[in-house]
Amino acid sequence: MNDSRPILAVSLGDPGGIGPEVVVKTLAQASIRRRARFRVYGPDSALSHAARLAGVTPFWITRAKAEAPLPSDVELLDYTMDEAPAPRATAEGGRISFAMVSDAISDALRPRGDPRRVDAVVTGPISKLAWKLAGHGEFPGHTELLASRCRADQFGMMFVSPRLRVILASAHVPLMDVARVLTSARVLQSIVLGDQACRQLGIASPRIAVCGLNPHAGEGGMLGDEEQRHIEPAIATARSRGINAQGPFPGDTIFNAAVRGDFDLVVAMYHDQGLIPVKLLDRDRAVNVTVGLPIIRTSPDHGTAFDIAGKNVADAGSMTAAVELAADFACRP
Amino acid sequence: MNDSRPILAVSLGDPGGIGPEVVVKTLAQASIRRRARFRVYGPDSALSHAARLAGVTPFWITRAKAEAPLPSDVELLDYTMDEAPAPRATAEGGRISFAMVSDAISDALRPRGDPRRVDAVVTGPISKLAWKLAGHGEFPGHTELLASRCRADQFGMMFVSPRLRVILASAHVPLMDVARVLTSARVLQSIVLGDQACRQLGIASPRIAVCGLNPHAGEGGMLGDEEQRHIEPAIATARSRGINAQGPFPGDTIFNAAVRGDFDLVVAMYHDQGLIPVKLLDRDRAVNVTVGLPIIRTSPDHGTAFDIAGKNVADAGSMTAAVELAADFACRP
Repeated sequence: MNDSRPILAVSLGDPGGIGPEVVVKTLAQASIRRRARFRVYGPDSALSHAARLAGVTPFWITRAKAEAPLPSDVELLDYTMDEAPAPRATAEGGRISFAMVSDAISDALRPRGDPRRVDAVVTGPISKLAWKLAGHGEFPGHTELLASRCRADQFGMMFVSPRLRVILASAHVPLMDVARVLTSARVLQSIVLGDQACRQLGIASPRIAVCGLNPHAGEGGMLGDEEQRHIEPAIATARSRGINAQGPFPGDTIFNAAVRGDFDLVVAMYHDQGLIPVKLLDRDRAVNVTVGLPIIRTSPDHGTAFDIAGKNVADAGSMTAAVELAADFACRP
Repeated sequence: MNDSRPILAVSLGDPGGIGPEVVVKTLAQASIRRRARFRVYGPDSALSHAARLAGVTPFWITRAKAEAPLPSDVELLDYTMDEAPAPRATAEGGRISFAMVSDAISDALRPRGDPRRVDAVVTGPISKLAWKLAGHGEFPGHTELLASRCRADQFGMMFVSPRLRVILASAHVPLMDVARVLTSARVLQSIVLGDQACRQLGIASPRIAVCGLNPHAGEGGMLGDEEQRHIEPAIATARSRGINAQGPFPGDTIFNAAVRGDFDLVVAMYHDQGLIPVKLLDRDRAVNVTVGLPIIRTSPDHGTAFDIAGKNVADAGSMTAAVELAADFACRP
């Protein structure tokens, strides 16, 4: 058998959230299964329940532990729950969602040729509070766990949607602390990581727009000087390394240029500057990618959505896009 | 003659910019002239030149000074230029664009019944640098001149576009200074002024969404505390006064809710938070409104665009929308 499809790990996320529903709807699609084989990490009970809700005939083989070769397009590594999933943050949900992500990362870190290796990890949404209740409060989310397990200190949060690619130079910090973390080195790192990620996606010479921090990108220093002190030097260094970075551009007009096709990537200086345009244009189609890691990791841009879990109304679009993007990354050298 | 149409002042803006072009294209529309009568402030030479470029037959009556009653749908108050308009910031362009706005404001401040009174002011784009060259550097733009002439100390910058209404709680300050100016009183003022403006536009009970400042609106204080210290108290006070204000909401999702129709107005905490969504969704259709003044003032959301001036390619959509919105405001009590 010569199967060139990559093997993608998919963790269900919190079993009480919408993760199982969006995973079952995504993997039930024949077009998705033509692109990759899958190992799902999570309780069979949760995926089976979601399949019944969606009217989907089970399409996976359940195993107690990973063996090779995969006997099917989709295998599920079963996790036994001590109690039924609840649509809220619980210690049990935190314990099990942490274990599945942790195992998926381990399998992604295995050397090539290891039969249990996976080529990329797609993570379903977890509850940070549930992780805390389960005693994993040292990791506020997937990204920090991934960075720790991969021993990565230079990583970034990128979003890929049908109309925009955006990487954040700062993310989950109070807005008034952004200037403190936004060094020239940090901006440069975001440009470099974003450039690499675009190349991995097949863009030969990515055109990168870098946002300013201040209104009108500082208007020549009249409305703030971070552009001159940090952002312009980072752009100059990136250009000296052959990266086609331009800017800094005013945040309130540069996304129009990117949507129009003038740029392949926008480097945003802070969370809302990058995520307002992504979510406004492409909500439920945007994918969160952790860049700078030795492994590929994507996830949908939504959370557990406990309020609608179990109702079979969750939109699987972002999870489907996350799987497709992981396959895109995994198929490139 | 019983003509119920309001009289709108329209200043051409810098004669070397695209102002004359977008004004002539707007006022040439019969549908616009059915809504209002107009007094244009600016050089006849500039408007005539723009009309020739656009292939529009002159439709206005030129007068050296305002008299009543208006003999036509459109009269032009002529300003003589000492030199021909240039597509760049010049002292002459600054002198004349300052004079026309200043005169339009004076006429808007006249008492009801004064034959020279206008009901609203629509301003074409000026060059701040040209105003500075002309010795009017104490006013960085229209808004400050208006506030000074109207002796207003509580005013705000609001944007109205087909899909969004947004008011800014802070505007042209460096991003890292936003926390300094963003007091509870300032946020409350924005809510109150925005509520009043929506009511003036015929919304009986405006539903107002207030943004947080920090990522995820501070996530319960973990990512900043301005929400708890300033924004929540302002919302509570507004609600105690009968204003339907809600929030604070995360900046990266609340605009989707507003576009969906859940809210009539979004109060943004800073320039890019409010203008990224407006410009991304409705560029060339957005109108800037100065609220809190005793007079009505709207303007397009673009600048002089010297780079494309004189080429007859400027999109008049935003100027047309600015005129329509001024007529909407002027027709309400």
